[in-house]
Amino acid sequence: MSETPVRRRRSIATVCLSGDLTDKLEAAAAAGFDGVEIFENDLLTFGGSPAEVRRLAGELGLAIDMFQPFRDFEAMPEPQRRRNIDRAERKFGVMEALGTDLLLVCSNVQEESLDDPARAAADLRELAERAHQRGLRIGFEALAWGRHTRQWRQAWDIVSRADHPSLGLIVDSFHTLALRDDPGGIADLPGERIFYVQLADAPLLEMDVLQWSRHHRNFPGQGQLPVRRFLQAVLASGYAGPLSLEVFNDEFRAAPVRQTARDGLRSLIYAEAELAPACAAAPLPPAPKLAGIDFLEFAVNEPRRRELAGFLGRMGFRLSGHHRSKQVELYRRGQVNLVLNAEPDSASAWHFEMHGPSVSAMGFRVDDADRTLARAEALLCSRWEEPRGEGEAPLPQLRAPDGSLVCLVEDRAGEPPRWERDFHLLPSQLAAGDELLAIDHVAQALAPGQMDGFMLFYRAVFGLEPQGLWELPDPRGLVRSRAMVSPDGALRLPLNVSEARETATGRFISAAAGAGVHHIAFRTGEISAALGSGAPLLPIPANYYDDLAARFGLEEDAVVRLRASNLLYDADREGGEFFHTYTSTFADRFFFEFVERRGGYSQFGAPNAAVRLAAQARSQLAAKAGSA
Amino acid sequence: MSETPVRRRRSIATVCLSGDLTDKLEAAAAAGFDGVEIFENDLLTFGGSPAEVRRLAGELGLAIDMFQPFRDFEAMPEPQRRRNIDRAERKFGVMEALGTDLLLVCSNVQEESLDDPARAAADLRELAERAHQRGLRIGFEALAWGRHTRQWRQAWDIVSRADHPSLGLIVDSFHTLALRDDPGGIADLPGERIFYVQLADAPLLEMDVLQWSRHHRNFPGQGQLPVRRFLQAVLASGYAGPLSLEVFNDEFRAAPVRQTARDGLRSLIYAEAELAPACAAAPLPPAPKLAGIDFLEFAVNEPRRRELAGFLGRMGFRLSGHHRSKQVELYRRGQVNLVLNAEPDSASAWHFEMHGPSVSAMGFRVDDADRTLARAEALLCSRWEEPRGEGEAPLPQLRAPDGSLVCLVEDRAGEPPRWERDFHLLPSQLAAGDELLAIDHVAQALAPGQMDGFMLFYRAVFGLEPQGLWELPDPRGLVRSRAMVSPDGALRLPLNVSEARETATGRFISAAAGAGVHHIAFRTGEISAALGSGAPLLPIPANYYDDLAARFGLEEDAVVRLRASNLLYDADREGGEFFHTYTSTFADRFFFEFVERRGGYSQFGAPNAAVRLAAQARSQLAAKAGSA
Repeated sequence: MSETPVRRRRSIATVCLSGDLTDKLEAAAAAGFDGVEIFENDLLTFGGSPAEVRRLAGELGLAIDMFQPFRDFEAMPEPQRRRNIDRAERKFGVMEALGTDLLLVCSNVQEESLDDPARAAADLRELAERAHQRGLRIGFEALAWGRHTRQWRQAWDIVSRADHPSLGLIVDSFHTLALRDDPGGIADLPGERIFYVQLADAPLLEMDVLQWSRHHRNFPGQGQLPVRRFLQAVLASGYAGPLSLEVFNDEFRAAPVRQTARDGLRSLIYAEAELAPACAAAPLPPAPKLAGIDFLEFAVNEPRRRELAGFLGRMGFRLSGHHRSKQVELYRRGQVNLVLNAEPDSASAWHFEMHGPSVSAMGFRVDDADRTLARAEALLCSRWEEPRGEGEAPLPQLRAPDGSLVCLVEDRAGEPPRWERDFHLLPSQLAAGDELLAIDHVAQALAPGQMDGFMLFYRAVFGLEPQGLWELPDPRGLVRSRAMVSPDGALRLPLNVSEARETATGRFISAAAGAGVHHIAFRTGEISAALGSGAPLLPIPANYYDDLAARFGLEEDAVVRLRASNLLYDADREGGEFFHTYTSTFADRFFFEFVERRGGYSQFGAPNAAVRLAAQARSQLAAKAGSA
Repeated sequence: MSETPVRRRRSIATVCLSGDLTDKLEAAAAAGFDGVEIFENDLLTFGGSPAEVRRLAGELGLAIDMFQPFRDFEAMPEPQRRRNIDRAERKFGVMEALGTDLLLVCSNVQEESLDDPARAAADLRELAERAHQRGLRIGFEALAWGRHTRQWRQAWDIVSRADHPSLGLIVDSFHTLALRDDPGGIADLPGERIFYVQLADAPLLEMDVLQWSRHHRNFPGQGQLPVRRFLQAVLASGYAGPLSLEVFNDEFRAAPVRQTARDGLRSLIYAEAELAPACAAAPLPPAPKLAGIDFLEFAVNEPRRRELAGFLGRMGFRLSGHHRSKQVELYRRGQVNLVLNAEPDSASAWHFEMHGPSVSAMGFRVDDADRTLARAEALLCSRWEEPRGEGEAPLPQLRAPDGSLVCLVEDRAGEPPRWERDFHLLPSQLAAGDELLAIDHVAQALAPGQMDGFMLFYRAVFGLEPQGLWELPDPRGLVRSRAMVSPDGALRLPLNVSEARETATGRFISAAAGAGVHHIAFRTGEISAALGSGAPLLPIPANYYDDLAARFGLEEDAVVRLRASNLLYDADREGGEFFHTYTSTFADRFFFEFVERRGGYSQFGAPNAAVRLAAQARSQLAAKAGSA
């Protein structure tokens, strides 16, 4: 280990995690954090004593890095000033029992507090001196909604004036960045005067900063704040203490605690790696260069295999290979590979058992599979190796947050992928002009609360970037959609989430008992030619076409042609055009889309989503009525 | 009917309601609306033609009052200007097929639109002339986020300049009030130049107005905007057209459509009644004067009756009466009446079948039961009459939104309520100093999306007013709580809702299969005396008391006494004090609280909620472990 640069300590505030203090500490330890900040509310509501918390943390190998927050302390008139000192002395006792030496004091929000930095400094100096006598330290932090002290510069001014070795500054990326305050100057502070650093990200929302902070923070890399710039400044100051996460988020409060803790640590590792070597941590292997989706694997049993093979057949796919040793078949059309896996005792069989017919694996084309796998493992992903027959090619795989697999297929120019050798390939039909060009995008339905975790996974491991958020009106509620896209657009993964249970996304989550792929889009050349006549298409209402003509000023016969093929249409401002059509839904789970992109159109036809969602709701109702 | 003043037409935009256009029209008709606005997206996504929509609406007795919105029309440069005219002519065709003569044009949001009111007026004049030639009309509305036209005065200026009889103004309470724009001047407009009026309320949120409008609008009376002032101004102008609801709300999109439609009409009736006779509608009977909760009725079966009787016994309640003809028992302690109903074939038995052991009815003390019932019926509530034995007193009852009953008990000074006569009363124990003084408050758990409807019910029918929102941290997620309180505080009903399924509120909703009472608080004199020693109290952790001493500077022995009785403490800024303690939870459903209020404390001890919620989560886990 002596060759490895010293790793910076990583910590997490207990308020980030759900459950009681035992759950929180266990999850933080299991994820691999070095320490925690004990959020006072978590202690007050806990059944055990501070000494028991200390023992539990010790057994789990966690340091208690800080106790927080101590509120509304500085610059109060008497008699509150005196009472605050008494209150602090009691909290010092709690800290001794907890075995932590650092207390976070956040800037006062009380109306009656005095706008008097000198007085604030004097109060904090007295507090620091009392702390010092007990071997404790005080860190002062500016709350973005403090009454008088809101910015780190003001807090630093007060800390400097107080000038006591047991008093230092605490900075928090959210409080700084939410105010659009420049973190750059933090670089010029003496690093040893910064006692602690808290990190949080957040989506950019135009709302009251207190509400924003209390409900919408998330982990670095899950939001849109320039946390990286903040962290850069902090590290440039010479700060050598822990990096700690402090997030208040309604969804995290209700989410499975170990998953949140793991996401948190993943976000820290990723944030540090983005700045290495400033962080003195081992750099991550670079993210892969992605060349699209090589194949999709469907988990099926025998009846579902027959049914799905029939469905694919109607879309022009042909049986193109049998696996040499497993009950696995390859279906192909043009450049698109779909694998039907009915092998017992496989990861896919387990996936089928959990979720029914479903996409159990996606194959991503990468430039270097081993390097990608090493990156993923450094980011806390589990690898998976499927047992394989003699002489068969190894297929590096890792687990996505929903338990499905991502297979890493090395993209070797001109050569077929290695996994093909494990199949007895059937004589291929020659690719005609109407063949499929690629898997254009694959959309996943997520349960409420899963968006942040999935975004971080695809961003950190694969370097995909989140696109803008779309709000899609389903007849039974809103669906929110955000695509994760690789830098050159070769890989596109829209992520959909809906609080409402009866939307298309909500219905998927119920039917499949969890997240999963519910929408697979194939890219075509001339779409009408590629459609052929067999695909079971979703009928689009006439009203849509009347409006289309009005909106885009299309020629009447163009509209007639679109309508005849149930084709939807969109155009961007640069003249790019998008033609697309959907199939009916297979087994209440997933459906397919054919898309043609012209002139650089890079979106997903979101303006048409309402029409598609309503048509799907209608056809589901019709299917129910038919089966009743 | 000729005596009744002419009733104003009531309408609703289809976007307020969930489902497809058929669902929406049927729900609007069932609630009793006169007309609808067809929101274009609902038509585009609908499988049937405009003519079929017209036929369906006609069969349901609904007029189609308006087609909306037509966007981004006025003040565009060429060639968009010409294309917009073509687009409008197509929409005129749709309107003719729908059988509506009014089109809403909302102000342009496009960047390239010209800041030129004269040009906007000329464009709208041309549009109005074309509309006129087809017997149609145009209403122009200022969007709060329009590019150049945001306020109703600007829109009116453009309409005035255009000066065409087929062009009028449309005003919307949200667009006006969200900008804090003064609606007062609308009163001075010529009423016949206002072609349509849309109403929406919203909670006061500090956020981007477009996001606020798209996701958080609600019906008048459900929010905090001064919709009444807006409506007053509109009516003062002499406007005689329909009042219509237009709400964009994520929860409404997913809610049961008929309930939303009924809430909508209730909100309109209530809003009009608040302003009668300006609305020329029959005034509502006044809201009751409330004198607290007279009794609570629990739905039980025989085993649950024994179990609950035992639980109540430990809290000091005594069997105090047997119903003369039914399997119903009265339990009493001091001024608190609890009724255990195990009568088969009753409303209570049905409630038990749906929800298990639960509060099936609340008795409210009112000054006039018949008048209250008449008000409730005018506000679309259903009355309920339980079959009764010979000579037994009638008990006027109405259905709450969750299907439970509210009984109206006339408060006759000094006399016992009439329902007592239906019981064989047992000799009462004399009230000692430690008796209960009242049912202090009753809290209900609501499913996500039910808050607005319940608030409106209690506000419109009973005149309760919503208090501030509390966010209570449960270890498994956030609970949001808002109390509905009568003007003098005699009746207090906190409403709790949680998106998270594993919070106390979420667990109740799962266990009880829907909303219901989950928390009943009794008011005591000196609380320690009232507690006695038998009540099964929720244990409160020691850490809470350490903090209490620090926060309030309480004397050490006061804290020791609180801790000995598991008493929680709060104080307000005016020196009011609150002492309270909770029982364990009965059958995973409801729990009880004892509260003592001193010095005018009027809140509910919300700062202690986290401690209570964590203790409940712990004891639930312990119970699970015990039963496993």
